[in-house]
Amino acid sequence: MIKAGIIGASGYAGNETLRLLLSHPNCEVVAVGGRSALGQKVSDLYPSYYEHCDLTFVSDEEVIEKADIIFAGLPSGLSEKYAKMCDEQGKKFVDLGADFRLHNEEDYKEWYKGEYKDKDLHQKQVYGLPELHRDAIKQASIIGNPGCYPTSVCLGLYPLLSHHLNASDHIIINSASGTTGAGKKLTEDTHFTKTNESFHPYKAGNHRHTPEIEQELSLMADKKVTVTFVPHLLPVNRGIVSTIYVKVDKDLDEIYKIYKETYQNERFVHVLPLGKNADLKFVTYTNDCHISLHMDERDHTLIIASTIDNMIKGTAGQAIQNMNLMYGLPEETGLQMVGPSF
Amino acid sequence: MIKAGIIGASGYAGNETLRLLLSHPNCEVVAVGGRSALGQKVSDLYPSYYEHCDLTFVSDEEVIEKADIIFAGLPSGLSEKYAKMCDEQGKKFVDLGADFRLHNEEDYKEWYKGEYKDKDLHQKQVYGLPELHRDAIKQASIIGNPGCYPTSVCLGLYPLLSHHLNASDHIIINSASGTTGAGKKLTEDTHFTKTNESFHPYKAGNHRHTPEIEQELSLMADKKVTVTFVPHLLPVNRGIVSTIYVKVDKDLDEIYKIYKETYQNERFVHVLPLGKNADLKFVTYTNDCHISLHMDERDHTLIIASTIDNMIKGTAGQAIQNMNLMYGLPEETGLQMVGPSF
Amino acid sequence: MIKAGIIGASGYAGNETLRLLLSHPNCEVVAVGGRSALGQKVSDLYPSYYEHCDLTFVSDEEVIEKADIIFAGLPSGLSEKYAKMCDEQGKKFVDLGADFRLHNEEDYKEWYKGEYKDKDLHQKQVYGLPELHRDAIKQASIIGNPGCYPTSVCLGLYPLLSHHLNASDHIIINSASGTTGAGKKLTEDTHFTKTNESFHPYKAGNHRHTPEIEQELSLMADKKVTVTFVPHLLPVNRGIVSTIYVKVDKDLDEIYKIYKETYQNERFVHVLPLGKNADLKFVTYTNDCHISLHMDERDHTLIIASTIDNMIKGTAGQAIQNMNLMYGLPEETGLQMVGPSF
Amino acid sequence: MIKAGIIGASGYAGNETLRLLLSHPNCEVVAVGGRSALGQKVSDLYPSYYEHCDLTFVSDEEVIEKADIIFAGLPSGLSEKYAKMCDEQGKKFVDLGADFRLHNEEDYKEWYKGEYKDKDLHQKQVYGLPELHRDAIKQASIIGNPGCYPTSVCLGLYPLLSHHLNASDHIIINSASGTTGAGKKLTEDTHFTKTNESFHPYKAGNHRHTPEIEQELSLMADKKVTVTFVPHLLPVNRGIVSTIYVKVDKDLDEIYKIYKETYQNERFVHVLPLGKNADLKFVTYTNDCHISLHMDERDHTLIIASTIDNMIKGTAGQAIQNMNLMYGLPEETGLQMVGPSF
Repeated sequence: MIKAGIIGASGYAGNETLRLLLSHPNCEVVAVGGRSALGQKVSDLYPSYYEHCDLTFVSDEEVIEKADIIFAGLPSGLSEKYAKMCDEQGKKFVDLGADFRLHNEEDYKEWYKGEYKDKDLHQKQVYGLPELHRDAIKQASIIGNPGCYPTSVCLGLYPLLSHHLNASDHIIINSASGTTGAGKKLTEDTHFTKTNESFHPYKAGNHRHTPEIEQELSLMADKKVTVTFVPHLLPVNRGIVSTIYVKVDKDLDEIYKIYKETYQNERFVHVLPLGKNADLKFVTYTNDCHISLHMDERDHTLIIASTIDNMIKGTAGQAIQNMNLMYGLPEETGLQMVGPSF
Repeated sequence: MIKAGIIGASGYAGNETLRLLLSHPNCEVVAVGGRSALGQKVSDLYPSYYEHCDLTFVSDEEVIEKADIIFAGLPSGLSEKYAKMCDEQGKKFVDLGADFRLHNEEDYKEWYKGEYKDKDLHQKQVYGLPELHRDAIKQASIIGNPGCYPTSVCLGLYPLLSHHLNASDHIIINSASGTTGAGKKLTEDTHFTKTNESFHPYKAGNHRHTPEIEQELSLMADKKVTVTFVPHLLPVNRGIVSTIYVKVDKDLDEIYKIYKETYQNERFVHVLPLGKNADLKFVTYTNDCHISLHMDERDHTLIIASTIDNMIKGTAGQAIQNMNLMYGLPEETGLQMVGPSF
Repeated sequence: MIKAGIIGASGYAGNETLRLLLSHPNCEVVAVGGRSALGQKVSDLYPSYYEHCDLTFVSDEEVIEKADIIFAGLPSGLSEKYAKMCDEQGKKFVDLGADFRLHNEEDYKEWYKGEYKDKDLHQKQVYGLPELHRDAIKQASIIGNPGCYPTSVCLGLYPLLSHHLNASDHIIINSASGTTGAGKKLTEDTHFTKTNESFHPYKAGNHRHTPEIEQELSLMADKKVTVTFVPHLLPVNRGIVSTIYVKVDKDLDEIYKIYKETYQNERFVHVLPLGKNADLKFVTYTNDCHISLHMDERDHTLIIASTIDNMIKGTAGQAIQNMNLMYGLPEETGLQMVGPSF
Repeated sequence: MIKAGIIGASGYAGNETLRLLLSHPNCEVVAVGGRSALGQKVSDLYPSYYEHCDLTFVSDEEVIEKADIIFAGLPSGLSEKYAKMCDEQGKKFVDLGADFRLHNEEDYKEWYKGEYKDKDLHQKQVYGLPELHRDAIKQASIIGNPGCYPTSVCLGLYPLLSHHLNASDHIIINSASGTTGAGKKLTEDTHFTKTNESFHPYKAGNHRHTPEIEQELSLMADKKVTVTFVPHLLPVNRGIVSTIYVKVDKDLDEIYKIYKETYQNERFVHVLPLGKNADLKFVTYTNDCHISLHMDERDHTLIIASTIDNMIKGTAGQAIQNMNLMYGLPEETGLQMVGPSF
């Protein structure tokens, strides 16, 4: 049994990791941390656990001491310290936050207003998107688990960019996310009366996931790719749809064929038949990504819709997929749930 | 491996049974029927299955032929024929509909306008609420899987009535259900623009689940119990809350103690600490039932709130719980999911 | 033109009053108060007003000075002081809160933990439910504007109790309200991810609207009537449905006839044809109340469903209806909107 | 009093026109048509009207006979006949559908598979977007009332294109609409369990509003402008947000200044302060359009968010705005409602 611990388990990301790990056949959650909830039971914060899980929030240090692999759901700037402790003790570390995603420290400084104190540590970080970096993940000890928006975008563009089918290196990305993406913190924008029957863009052209998206797109294209990225807040609990606009000079059938081939052996990425529309309804509560392809023939603009559950494939499920790879388990272990469709 | 088949798998009840069985470690779904969808793939109707499940809808007869246990999600009046076929072939039959729930044929005639053609067959039927009839279920070959509302009501009242703590034999039941309870059929009342931002009672004092509720309450109380039952349609996908009003002459602490004792060994029924409110948010996507108890001291009226996921504990999960009992498996096999809390 | 002022206009109740008064042909809003928002524009808090209303939040004293009638949307315990100021200056005062609703100070002490400092002032208070107390309202200078739940309940029971058609003096009231009822304050229970796809009772048998309901029901029945009242939180923005259970010894047709007669001249109260279900969908964004009647024949239990928009007939619309009466205007002035039905 | 009639008043568009006209001080609705509902009362289909409006659905011919101005909410292809009748009788005609929007019959043939039988009639049509074509509307007898998506897009781009501030003539438009846009017809995609907690694109790059958008954008830019337009279905009842991406070579402050100037005298179009996000929450239930401007500085891509209520500014409110202009009334008559903000 893998001994897993979760730091920041009182937040949504850490907590969803706990929830999914409780069903994982090869892993036991030995401790959960949550500074603001120290001494409380998990079920005090999240009543679904009532009489199912007796874990109590302990100190972060205790989590690291007891576990072999540590998941951390912390605000940006706080993970490095724990990653270092794990590294020194030979333990694996999966950061659910943004501190180990960007390879270029300048990007981190610009978008997160922080710095990499231990630069050697960051040399070890691997960007934990299995469909792109599977081999590196298997060897990794420190994983920067991808952001939710970047996961949907990178999976949506990987076949296109890695096959150099794009005719432009600037890409428009219009995304929409359910409110679990905004987390547990009470805000005016996530007060029910405000969010319900509402929809709006936020941080248009200015969201922190932008450099992460550009890093990965440029890697797959093997040249600089830039994006205009605009997220929107959806009045649903879960799910992201990224609608991506990119000029191409191939026709849709050819592109579709390459998408199907690229993902033919992937358990979690599904390219829908032409004519279908990706819909978050069909991936929520799963680790799946659905992709649909559409063409505006009049202008050779390819439209890619890519959808995931932001809390699972966009966070906790992907973290577990990474854990499975790091421990040599079948990648889908504990992640084989089919979504409800209604 | 148990070989399971599902008749009427194109509807919500049958389909949810399929979805859950796909994660069951001791059961294989060998065939699914769906007359209106013959020849179509399951994923054509329910896209979550895309590239995960290759089953195609076949004839009902083929389902019965291939399977050892058959689940039937059919409109009332259609199940008897299939139950008989199964009975003659020594196969187990779990009716997700209402044809094998009522022991008194007169009730069936009055509320469902049908009749019991094969009366011997109905002698074999067992009401499949494990917390009430566990021993009988273990021996059963024909299960009348309970209705969703009756499940929430019976679990909410069982400790009270079986310990004769009620001071009145007439009970007021105010229930609210998510729209999956209304099924797949398109209706004006479940058109999004109508249901969204809406709430209303329906079939007030006149819903078909009334005789089923009274049958079970009378059995547990060992005398005639009557109810006034009013369901409401909630603008959510899943979940039922039944708020039950009953005169008592004991105090709340004593009643609470008996509830906790009654359910102390039940995996799926959870009596919340006094002061908490049962909320469907915390049981949806699980086989759990949460119960909270409250007292209007001024009038000795006990208020019981009992909540379940109508599609799981109220339908498909309960059916699988019954299957587990019938096959001697641990009751919670394949049903251990914890809900998301958000 | 009536000169109206609103104290506590930064909250939902005061703000909805402002919004509706802006369309009132005989009334001008001369000032709005909001201590927490002093100096801000109304449109800073409520963007719908942007470029439509230039009012800025001023001090409560300034509001009273400028206006002839003052609406107050304040937490309980804070209104008495302002009512006194208005009374001394010969101005009319409509309290949207609970400080002038209860005639028996003991009830106020028990449920609101406060006291009536100026007992003479409370001698002047009139309970502002026009359908019950129209004549008194016309003469009133201090109005206790009814609570949202009590409005739905009192209108639902008035014909029955005033005609002594009830066979029991204890009544079960199961209500459900949209989240605007919980107000502007951020809470865990009204965080979108929590409220959405949720439903639960709260303060079961213990809600502050209980004594207000019992006061009015007892008045109309001319004897002591008690209730068990359980509110629930609905995942919608607006609207209340109260489902009321009461033993009767008349039949449904006779009761229906009396309901229709009682309300035949009321502009805002509508008794639906038998067979229809009251639904908040059809009264939201209006000052209407829809009532439907149902009978559980087996037990002579009458089921009354009564629905209003909690922010309009339950708060701001009713306050304006009271103002119209106090100023001798047609009762429906500024309140004639028809709801959208979708 | 203007005598108005509505053909197709049983559908959402016609019905919303009726609802708003009932509050219009200078207009009386003399008759409503609805072939599928002949002889029924309006309140039978839309219960909000119960005891408020006694209109009964009559034949289309009767509507035209009684009214001076006729609004038609019909499927495409059916309006020409009625427009001709009105034209011959000297009556005004406002088509809520698409039959009088496209000036180039070839576009109509391609996208609507129909033809213009009476070409002279189409010479008289005016595209009824007051902010663009106010003078022509004042003189018009036949109005093609704009589509909901095109209204949001045209208002969002008008200042930019009419001032030639765009650096590219191809524009990306990502829109999302509430489900009233899909109308009254029951479909699988608007079944509550499907739409709720869902989001997806549809008709990507292929929606019928595309030629209408391009017609108007080209007119304002005075050269050919093309768009890639992708609508999405939002799980809300009302409201559209169009997020528009266009290359520019001016900076944001300069563009903002021109937007403010362009719309400074418009009652219904509001350019939000820089830093704010347009949100449909704040325009629903009103005739307003909110526009917010954002810049991706790294790529000189201007992001315009434009939001309206699809049923009001996108349909019925705009139709009434057109009527007001045609009759020389103040443009805002009957349309001055402020939205609820919650």
